[in-house]
Amino acid sequence: MGTSAEALLFHRVAGDVASLIERGALRPGDRLPSIRRLSRERRVSIATVLAAYTKLEHDGLVEARAKSGHFVRRPVEPVIMPPRKPRLALAPARVSVSSGVAALVNSMRDPAVVPLGAAAVAPELLPIRALNRILSSLARELSTAGAAYDPPPGLQSLRRQLARRSLTWGTALDEDDFVTTIGAMEALHLALRATTRPGDAIAIATPTYFGLLQLAEEMNLRVIEVPTHPGTGLDIDALEVVLSQAPVKACLAVTTFDNPLGALMSDENKNRLVRLLDKHDLPLIEDDIYGDLSFDGSRPRPAKAFDRDGRVLLCGSISKTMAAGYRVGWISAGRYHATIERLKFSQSVSSPTLMQMTVAEYLDSGAYDRHLRHLRAALASQVQRYRAAIATSFPPGTWVSEPKGGFVLWVELPSEVSALKLQSEALANGIAIAPGPIFSARQRYSSSIRITCGTPWSARMERAISKLGELAYAELRGDMRAAAGR
Amino acid sequence: MGTSAEALLFHRVAGDVASLIERGALRPGDRLPSIRRLSRERRVSIATVLAAYTKLEHDGLVEARAKSGHFVRRPVEPVIMPPRKPRLALAPARVSVSSGVAALVNSMRDPAVVPLGAAAVAPELLPIRALNRILSSLARELSTAGAAYDPPPGLQSLRRQLARRSLTWGTALDEDDFVTTIGAMEALHLALRATTRPGDAIAIATPTYFGLLQLAEEMNLRVIEVPTHPGTGLDIDALEVVLSQAPVKACLAVTTFDNPLGALMSDENKNRLVRLLDKHDLPLIEDDIYGDLSFDGSRPRPAKAFDRDGRVLLCGSISKTMAAGYRVGWISAGRYHATIERLKFSQSVSSPTLMQMTVAEYLDSGAYDRHLRHLRAALASQVQRYRAAIATSFPPGTWVSEPKGGFVLWVELPSEVSALKLQSEALANGIAIAPGPIFSARQRYSSSIRITCGTPWSARMERAISKLGELAYAELRGDMRAAAGR
Repeated sequence: MGTSAEALLFHRVAGDVASLIERGALRPGDRLPSIRRLSRERRVSIATVLAAYTKLEHDGLVEARAKSGHFVRRPVEPVIMPPRKPRLALAPARVSVSSGVAALVNSMRDPAVVPLGAAAVAPELLPIRALNRILSSLARELSTAGAAYDPPPGLQSLRRQLARRSLTWGTALDEDDFVTTIGAMEALHLALRATTRPGDAIAIATPTYFGLLQLAEEMNLRVIEVPTHPGTGLDIDALEVVLSQAPVKACLAVTTFDNPLGALMSDENKNRLVRLLDKHDLPLIEDDIYGDLSFDGSRPRPAKAFDRDGRVLLCGSISKTMAAGYRVGWISAGRYHATIERLKFSQSVSSPTLMQMTVAEYLDSGAYDRHLRHLRAALASQVQRYRAAIATSFPPGTWVSEPKGGFVLWVELPSEVSALKLQSEALANGIAIAPGPIFSARQRYSSSIRITCGTPWSARMERAISKLGELAYAELRGDMRAAAGR
Repeated sequence: MGTSAEALLFHRVAGDVASLIERGALRPGDRLPSIRRLSRERRVSIATVLAAYTKLEHDGLVEARAKSGHFVRRPVEPVIMPPRKPRLALAPARVSVSSGVAALVNSMRDPAVVPLGAAAVAPELLPIRALNRILSSLARELSTAGAAYDPPPGLQSLRRQLARRSLTWGTALDEDDFVTTIGAMEALHLALRATTRPGDAIAIATPTYFGLLQLAEEMNLRVIEVPTHPGTGLDIDALEVVLSQAPVKACLAVTTFDNPLGALMSDENKNRLVRLLDKHDLPLIEDDIYGDLSFDGSRPRPAKAFDRDGRVLLCGSISKTMAAGYRVGWISAGRYHATIERLKFSQSVSSPTLMQMTVAEYLDSGAYDRHLRHLRAALASQVQRYRAAIATSFPPGTWVSEPKGGFVLWVELPSEVSALKLQSEALANGIAIAPGPIFSARQRYSSSIRITCGTPWSARMERAISKLGELAYAELRGDMRAAAGR
């Protein structure tokens, strides 16, 4: 695409193919004209046709099959059906999700298992080589680095870089606003310890990341689940009802590209959320680990940007964008800062020095923004590919989320399918998935699963999604047979 | 000391000097014969005399002064007076030590402050260069290491090395018995989470490491303080009384070279302790971080070695022997293993991969045992030097502990001296110390301080100890003046 003339031809070719598909002239499964033929017919270069087909492929409209050419994809159906909205239950639930999580965690250790379960990005998409090179140099040059404790708030050079990055988040935080942690999970744990006591109730989105529910369970907290819209996030009207009627001590929310729905709260809703918590004088524990992973390149502001009096505890980490195994995270805890420092000291004293140094140097180098552009594009494309494959392979009546960022898909299967059964059958076939019930304190979502799209699309992934579809179909058939036998 | 004849001469010279000191023929401050003169008079080699003087120096009997020769040290006095035994209070205390700890933690960040406060070993005594070299190689060679989560129980190669080392502890643990953690503090926190609930009472030694008390305070635990003998450790008779009368849910003890007393429980007492807990069916949370640091080269067994049914949760780390800033620790939790795995996952997910890899490779190389021999000898000698300097500089009536391992000294000053006041005056003079009251849930030990001997003896350290003595004298005089004015 060197000149505007070429760009024009490219768009015309792509547009024409799209139009044929839209009008039904090319139908799902149909073969597209070969690149050579179209090049000849339209008198454009082979490169231009190839670029057009590649773009259509990235957009999920067509798919390339090895040695056979390009074909029209089966569309995801029905994509418009909203997920079943959970009933709002005002009585706090005692949480119990731990048993369901064990199988998932165990599968993380086995490289032979297809990793559609845990929310992790594949190493080849992460800047791990660059980070390890920096780490290697630092460890060689600074021969005594890492000998001593680096007590809270943690390494100054990292906090300074975080303060600089907070400008891109739309929140001008100071280096003294941060405490560094062991990933975002330690930050969230510290935040819950600072704001709640055992037996307290907290408000939390549903469905939500099972690790948060497990943490709440182990801290003996009760949770009130607030419905979440797959597009717009936490239902603030519902939260308002909850806060006016239940003795909630804190609200915990993943405000940007939440896990598992991928929902994004608008600035307006984030502001409304903080104002509502102002009214009730409650803290907001905000999990922002997916904030840098928008597909369109924007950087949604966290709710922290609308915080006037230090009630928002913003938690983040590099685990989804740089390296989960580095265990570098942070919290900007507003009025709870001093408490968090104290809790961090007695909980794990300090964080590893060299890991913090490495991340600070990587951020300072400016390489992070370049990396992020590539990562966002790759994840956007992968999510599309996985989504299209699910639509092709799964039984009719399946609903798939349509996230605007992050890299997980929430899949609601027909209600006859048991997600927990599907999980165990998938594992028997060497495939890890996350079953719906672990995303709820009340074990809702019995027919939903979460699929992680963190690994680049490949024949192995294609086979895995196809196998999951087969297993779901088999469950449906088994259910029908059982019904017929009654 | 190549032959037995030389060894004989060496011991005779050293023995004669010691005998002169003992009989009072050589008195504190007196100069010893010069090495040359003694060599001539006794017809032994200069090397033999030098070796004898060095040994006497290591034993704290004489001291070398630059360009002036060797002098008889002033003895530590009165070393035999036992510390004031705390009354046994059976009503559990709500803990509140946090405020007193803040000044100490803050001072850890300032390299200009003389580090007699935090229990840290100086980098020059640690194998940090060797560790960082390994880390540098691993990060360069394993270009994707650290990209992924390494979920509990943690890195297998490290757990395998720990299992091998557990043989030297006198406990044959398996790699599957370990969960790796962020230092020993995370291990202790996990252990308390696994065995107690908020509001529960735990039995704990007194005086004890303030971090444990702070942790108990923040977890809303109540503590019953069990007196500790500076030589033999936890008073098991007292613990027996406690357990028979108070609703204790766990016992937390540093069984080998505890902090701050340096007490060592005998095997017999460790066994008695575990049997007592058997009787009451209670868990023992055992902090063993000083276990490798005996002055005589022995490796005392942890109480875990006497555990028959998995009630001991053994916690350890490399922070006192290799590198505090690596944050590598572990727990062998017996029957609580599965619970600990689950708690670790939701508390911090996993530990940094490359740090664990580095420690595993260092342990595998066999270098650790060589390092440990040097470290033990250095710390033994330093503790003697600091101890002698305290005896020289501090007011009469001061008692100093006589640890058999570790690197901290517990100093009981005359009761007119306020430890907290001394801490703040010392800090104003650029010297950090740990004041006694933070080592007790009931703020006992108001005239005691803990002095860390982790930094090699030097003129700077000598000036600091001398300054502390001056400040203590000044407090005493101020107190006397105030008394006279009444």
